[in-house]
Amino acid sequence: MGETDALLANNERYSTGFDKGDLPAEPARRVVVVTCMDARIDPAAALGLHEGDAHVLRNAGGVVTEDVLRSLTLSHHLLGAQEVLLMHHSRCAMAGMDEAGAIAQIEERSGGATVDFSLGAFDDLEADLRASAERIASHPLLSRLSVRAVLYEVETGKVREVAR
Amino acid sequence: MGETDALLANNERYSTGFDKGDLPAEPARRVVVVTCMDARIDPAAALGLHEGDAHVLRNAGGVVTEDVLRSLTLSHHLLGAQEVLLMHHSRCAMAGMDEAGAIAQIEERSGGATVDFSLGAFDDLEADLRASAERIASHPLLSRLSVRAVLYEVETGKVREVAR
Repeated sequence: MGETDALLANNERYSTGFDKGDLPAEPARRVVVVTCMDARIDPAAALGLHEGDAHVLRNAGGVVTEDVLRSLTLSHHLLGAQEVLLMHHSRCAMAGMDEAGAIAQIEERSGGATVDFSLGAFDDLEADLRASAERIASHPLLSRLSVRAVLYEVETGKVREVAR
Repeated sequence: MGETDALLANNERYSTGFDKGDLPAEPARRVVVVTCMDARIDPAAALGLHEGDAHVLRNAGGVVTEDVLRSLTLSHHLLGAQEVLLMHHSRCAMAGMDEAGAIAQIEERSGGATVDFSLGAFDDLEADLRASAERIASHPLLSRLSVRAVLYEVETGKVREVAR
């Protein structure tokens, strides 16, 4: 049995007695969280979010890509989000990564397939976090969103504010 | 006090007595979940995931964008994920959305700023889910990943498998 089967079995327990079937699509707290895919982060647990509370966007690094800007546009304009909480984290694999070396490693493992995109590595965690927050705040479609940027410490579970 | 302040206060409780500070970056279950940003979905709760278990990728619609392919490449080749669980959901705002109408509405709300990207709307939920799973499975960098596709019912909390 693969791990996915275990997750589907877990879902049987979750859905038994499920009583949240009437929630609206609009997030009740009007918040959208942007963070990394990192397995150590459970945004709902770490921030006390319940079903229906907030949109959550996640990718490798919590990088503010075009896809994140697309999703923020939808979250804000069509579903009512007013606040962005951008959360990067300590010990991120994307921070300080040797991008060229990583691409060579991936291509070797893939038997000749080409990595024709940036992996999104960055050098300085706090500097990148500030720049990422600014990228959202300065976007013409997102000028009315409030943006705050925090660092999540995977060592302690604590969040520390870096920019607002 | 904004909602973000409430989330940061919740984090104080989460981090008190936190005992997961030694988890590795690699997801223990070697799974990466791809799903929508929708506020009604708590992937960890719905699938029984704990901190350290799995990567989670989320955007508007759970669309398999270039950014998702970038993140999957990193998850698989550098951090050991072997299985993808792609999870779309019922009552998704992106399913059946009038894309041109939504863009006009967003541009009007933004005082003249232009939406110069696709919102990612799709017509048929199951057809899009199958096509999205195929987009991952056929990617030259991701050919060794196992991909399964499920629909999450926001009405019942249940997950139903559509493609594997």
